[in-house]
Amino acid sequence: MDLTWAGYVAATLTTLAFVPQAVKTLRTRDTRSISLYMYVVFTAGVAFWLVYGIYLHSWPMIIANIVTLGLAAMILYMKLRWR
Amino acid sequence: MDLTWAGYVAATLTTLAFVPQAVKTLRTRDTRSISLYMYVVFTAGVAFWLVYGIYLHSWPMIIANIVTLGLAAMILYMKLRWR
Repeated sequence: MDLTWAGYVAATLTTLAFVPQAVKTLRTRDTRSISLYMYVVFTAGVAFWLVYGIYLHSWPMIIANIVTLGLAAMILYMKLRWR
Repeated sequence: MDLTWAGYVAATLTTLAFVPQAVKTLRTRDTRSISLYMYVVFTAGVAFWLVYGIYLHSWPMIIANIVTLGLAAMILYMKLRWR
């Protein structure tokens, strides 16, 4: 059984998951219950995933991680700005 | 140049990132600025990563995703309980 589709579903879901958080934070400017350390560590981690994806020449990894990096960095910026 | 280490660093960081969020939420019981939809979609996505890791027989993926799934599900449960 080929489960490659599960990898694509996984990459799509864990990338798009950050859209509602970014939209909610942008609208409310409320970041109080969001952990700063989570977004510092997570953003750094996604940058490493991107490096690793480039190394593997994996376009799904590269594209998913560029989008996730943008969203996570945006939430981190809002947390730093509106705390 | 072998960049496999970047994959391990990435997996470790994006997994451990959820620890400070889980601890902060557990302590404060404040979930107001956390997006419910983010954790619903993210938890589902990590479950698919776990399925894909099992399919690839990749132990780093399996272990990292079991830990991330536990942490994300815990934050989702707290969001549903204390909103």
